[in-house]
Amino acid sequence: MKIITLLTDFGTKSGYVSQMKGVIYSLSKAIIIDITHDVNRHDVKEGAFILKSSVPYFPNGSIHVAVVDPEVGTDRRSIIIKTKNHILIGPDNGLLIPIANLLGDFTVYNITNKRYMLKKISNTFNGRDIFAPISAHIVNGVSIEKLGERINDYVKLDFGKYRIAKKTALGQVIHIDRFGNIITNIDGDELKNFVDYNKNIILLIREKEYNIPFVKSYGYVKENKYLATIGGSNLFEICINKGNASEFFNIKNCEEIRIWY
Amino acid sequence: MKIITLLTDFGTKSGYVSQMKGVIYSLSKAIIIDITHDVNRHDVKEGAFILKSSVPYFPNGSIHVAVVDPEVGTDRRSIIIKTKNHILIGPDNGLLIPIANLLGDFTVYNITNKRYMLKKISNTFNGRDIFAPISAHIVNGVSIEKLGERINDYVKLDFGKYRIAKKTALGQVIHIDRFGNIITNIDGDELKNFVDYNKNIILLIREKEYNIPFVKSYGYVKENKYLATIGGSNLFEICINKGNASEFFNIKNCEEIRIWY
Amino acid sequence: MKIITLLTDFGTKSGYVSQMKGVIYSLSKAIIIDITHDVNRHDVKEGAFILKSSVPYFPNGSIHVAVVDPEVGTDRRSIIIKTKNHILIGPDNGLLIPIANLLGDFTVYNITNKRYMLKKISNTFNGRDIFAPISAHIVNGVSIEKLGERINDYVKLDFGKYRIAKKTALGQVIHIDRFGNIITNIDGDELKNFVDYNKNIILLIREKEYNIPFVKSYGYVKENKYLATIGGSNLFEICINKGNASEFFNIKNCEEIRIWY
Repeated sequence: MKIITLLTDFGTKSGYVSQMKGVIYSLSKAIIIDITHDVNRHDVKEGAFILKSSVPYFPNGSIHVAVVDPEVGTDRRSIIIKTKNHILIGPDNGLLIPIANLLGDFTVYNITNKRYMLKKISNTFNGRDIFAPISAHIVNGVSIEKLGERINDYVKLDFGKYRIAKKTALGQVIHIDRFGNIITNIDGDELKNFVDYNKNIILLIREKEYNIPFVKSYGYVKENKYLATIGGSNLFEICINKGNASEFFNIKNCEEIRIWY
Repeated sequence: MKIITLLTDFGTKSGYVSQMKGVIYSLSKAIIIDITHDVNRHDVKEGAFILKSSVPYFPNGSIHVAVVDPEVGTDRRSIIIKTKNHILIGPDNGLLIPIANLLGDFTVYNITNKRYMLKKISNTFNGRDIFAPISAHIVNGVSIEKLGERINDYVKLDFGKYRIAKKTALGQVIHIDRFGNIITNIDGDELKNFVDYNKNIILLIREKEYNIPFVKSYGYVKENKYLATIGGSNLFEICINKGNASEFFNIKNCEEIRIWY
Repeated sequence: MKIITLLTDFGTKSGYVSQMKGVIYSLSKAIIIDITHDVNRHDVKEGAFILKSSVPYFPNGSIHVAVVDPEVGTDRRSIIIKTKNHILIGPDNGLLIPIANLLGDFTVYNITNKRYMLKKISNTFNGRDIFAPISAHIVNGVSIEKLGERINDYVKLDFGKYRIAKKTALGQVIHIDRFGNIITNIDGDELKNFVDYNKNIILLIREKEYNIPFVKSYGYVKENKYLATIGGSNLFEICINKGNASEFFNIKNCEEIRIWY
């Protein structure tokens, strides 16, 4: 049985996601797994980050449908990205690109074959009417070449550059999780070449400096104390033990941070 | 494998939904799909709307358990509705009626046979103790006639009348989705007989008039501008591109709107 | 097919839960069911209550992974609890103990065998890197004795004592559900030996007394009136019909209540 994952900004309230699942089950046998439906509304970058963090944990052969799609119903294209081990389906707005880059060599197809979409296509809900049936037909063995044509001018997206030097690193916030942990784009393995756990570092946020312990996990500082660590996505994170760092530092996605060590 | 869908207003926090799933899996093999558990608390009409929007996308043979049930534990009846291709299970409070009407010819049964319920029935949780096991037994092939008796005096519900004329239409709000889109009960296909995309219409909400573009999708107006469109459920919607129309217009379920074109 | 349930305080936004599911599906065939991911952050007691309420409804042979884990990455141990019919996996912080006690005779194992964990273990995400793969290997038939060693000094947890006497009962709040219903640790069956439905009782919360009807279900009082009942978990509950009792009484988890009858 093939796995189809779903990532959207639809929320779970209105039944939109269930309509996509109904379409998939009507056309194919698959195991459907939710990655999330709570991406910040229209936040393509956040959706791309969560997708990139989650896809590598799924078995080879999985198909990933992602819909954060403010331009639905306009002339933005719908695409399939074929990588060695995973297939990605979604709008051509950059959402699928960071994970495609991570997975390595990939080919992008513009979905054009209406035979494999629902018969009636709403202008506002391609997730249900195009992406869901396309994913089901791929599960059923329809070749991607039948579904559309190869393109090279797809929309690109990245999470911004980060720099790690001997004494300092610079990056930006790419996600705030449920706990208020501030996740940056600074690679954890690289950073650990220059700084050891249980040392203090200096953190600069909006021209204000903080002296902050760099530790292995949350529980190494007292309750309500801030800390820096390498999180589950191997990225540099700023947290408060049992508290909410994003509220404390009043920081949002895309803001810049700098550290010295 | 049969599909059982679940729609409730239980939320996902307290494990109530998982208890229903545990009961179903203890008794049968089924694929369980969540439609939503975030129906506004006790809002039978909203639950009925989401159910009606979602059920048609599921394969024939699916069973749909819906629980928005403020009168649980009183003498309100529990019912099964048999339609040609779907089976509906829930309280006799109107929740199942709009989708039953949409699906066409149907028969209603009052669930009375305690043999197919859990042995210990809590007064406050029929979802787990009655509806879940009943759905599992139906998956296992128990005939509906064994579970209860046919009735004709079930509780009715509709979403109110709408009227579409040559120059004007009148309807009411039936759902606000996660994006703040205002979904009305005005049929989109009918409306398109009288008004074309890319024309402006006049919208009347609580005696205030708005001049509003009628477009194919959100992205056809600038960010934070309002628009009217036909949404994914083929219903007339009022939206703000990347904004929240229900907050802007300060409108709620059941309020009346009128348009001229 | 074996069932693996998941209970966490991760929320569904960040894809953490989906990463656990990806790991499980990469290693095994299982049916994964969410109990909840919305446990109050770091609230081990609430997680333990929801787990205890839900597990008994799942089929024998199910495996339950629970992660409410403020001490992740420190030297707190990871454990497996084997009971007659269910297997529990999670941190050694008391989370698994109330359900283990309810299920009866049990044995606790300290998970030590790294061969059955992910190769790269993040300090902050044992749910994905340890608990998920361990559950999958158990589904695949790996014996628990291979995964770790028996221990007896595991961390204990209970929901506090309650007392029921002829004229009065004393207990504490253990959960507030989505509806604002106040669920206490007072056993419903025991209480019903002393007090009948449709009688009024006196409720004492923080030195204030309320005269409150004890009824079979919510709908037996008028809208917005308070009531006491025995809820779906066979526990004494205080509710407001179609209203929010926890807001009205301004009460939180762990607070004490007393009743006279």
